[in-house]
Amino acid sequence: MNKLKIIGFDADDTLWENGLYFRKAEQEFALMLRNFIDPDSLHARLYAVEMKNMPTYGYGAMAYTLSLIETALDVIHSAPNSSKALSQGKIDSGIIERILGLGRGILSHPIELLPDVESILPVLQARYRLIIVTKGDILDQERKLSKSGLLPYFHHIEIVSEKHEENYRDLLRRLDVAPAEFMMVGNSLKSDVLPVLNIGGQAVHVPAASIWEHEQCEKPLSPYYEINRLGQLLTVLA
Amino acid sequence: MNKLKIIGFDADDTLWENGLYFRKAEQEFALMLRNFIDPDSLHARLYAVEMKNMPTYGYGAMAYTLSLIETALDVIHSAPNSSKALSQGKIDSGIIERILGLGRGILSHPIELLPDVESILPVLQARYRLIIVTKGDILDQERKLSKSGLLPYFHHIEIVSEKHEENYRDLLRRLDVAPAEFMMVGNSLKSDVLPVLNIGGQAVHVPAASIWEHEQCEKPLSPYYEINRLGQLLTVLA
Repeated sequence: MNKLKIIGFDADDTLWENGLYFRKAEQEFALMLRNFIDPDSLHARLYAVEMKNMPTYGYGAMAYTLSLIETALDVIHSAPNSSKALSQGKIDSGIIERILGLGRGILSHPIELLPDVESILPVLQARYRLIIVTKGDILDQERKLSKSGLLPYFHHIEIVSEKHEENYRDLLRRLDVAPAEFMMVGNSLKSDVLPVLNIGGQAVHVPAASIWEHEQCEKPLSPYYEINRLGQLLTVLA
Repeated sequence: MNKLKIIGFDADDTLWENGLYFRKAEQEFALMLRNFIDPDSLHARLYAVEMKNMPTYGYGAMAYTLSLIETALDVIHSAPNSSKALSQGKIDSGIIERILGLGRGILSHPIELLPDVESILPVLQARYRLIIVTKGDILDQERKLSKSGLLPYFHHIEIVSEKHEENYRDLLRRLDVAPAEFMMVGNSLKSDVLPVLNIGGQAVHVPAASIWEHEQCEKPLSPYYEINRLGQLLTVLA
């Protein structure tokens, strides 16, 4: 471990709550459409629309809002009792307005730091260069970072469109560190652990309360650290 | 000029067509809503909605699509002859679907390089480090860069949420160059010229066919280069 120079942190659901706000928005979305579809079927429809749109829209709250609107139109059009809201191709415009409001709500929620974040960052900053590696809308990520008050702890912020092996390789090349000198800490095995192990780095998995299907993957075969809360990172690094 | 080390290029409407696709989308949007509002009034309404949303959504095609939807709902609700499409708070769902299609169209248009781009980049690459400094959706900008075939000419790609003085200062610090060793080339006085002059860099303005109101500003008082087409950059640098 004495070779370690840089620790990378994922942001959403590693440093602060995030998925929670998407889940709350989806609950309200399901309420709006409760006359047309049950929540589980709606979730499946929404996820299918999100995956279809992923190559075009990418991650983040604006992509999510556009997929909510598309899913609502699709569900209302195809619902058997669609006559309630749909007559001659017309839908309740209030639904679309409320969906725009759900998206704005996600983009403006307060930042709630996860446990141990504020206690470990000063300790780690004294021993390593700390960076953030996150994906999503640039503006939204910058705003959350700024609101979080955590910016002074970080030497570099990297906002990427995907966390694939080539993204990490490119980042480490620009930071001028070898993969073995880098450790990534995050809640997603798929984005924070697996690609980093594959390029020869170290990784620590801190599972979040729940995880979006898109981030689920098989457990990596290479060794990695699994901790229950961020404070245990100090034990890992001891 | 012999101190110059890095040339930064704006991307949209400097290296390739971009605003054109937004203007085409807006023309179609005006056609969709022609029974409710004239194109000039619609343009003013849309611009007001975009500016209201700018702090939350930022730049790019997804932000634009969400603002188109909000403007359409707003216009249809408030139009005097709204009864045509609006009855008891219902609107033609086809309009929302077509707006989603306009946004997808902007996100998937082919890349048309602007004049001289392909001839000057190899010449300049032999003498300077070339970088791109652009704002907008990360995924969209990366896709356009990849489609453009121009990636091999650039040493670094910087996608930012805003092009303010502090964004340029931060970038130059990370690239380890002094402002006097940096020249920015772009179509926006506000984003590509003024902030760079203000921090002590050099700047070249290449006006595009048309410019979005949001990028308009007073002419800078500090000296900068103004060229009609990118090829003249070689004369500026001679």
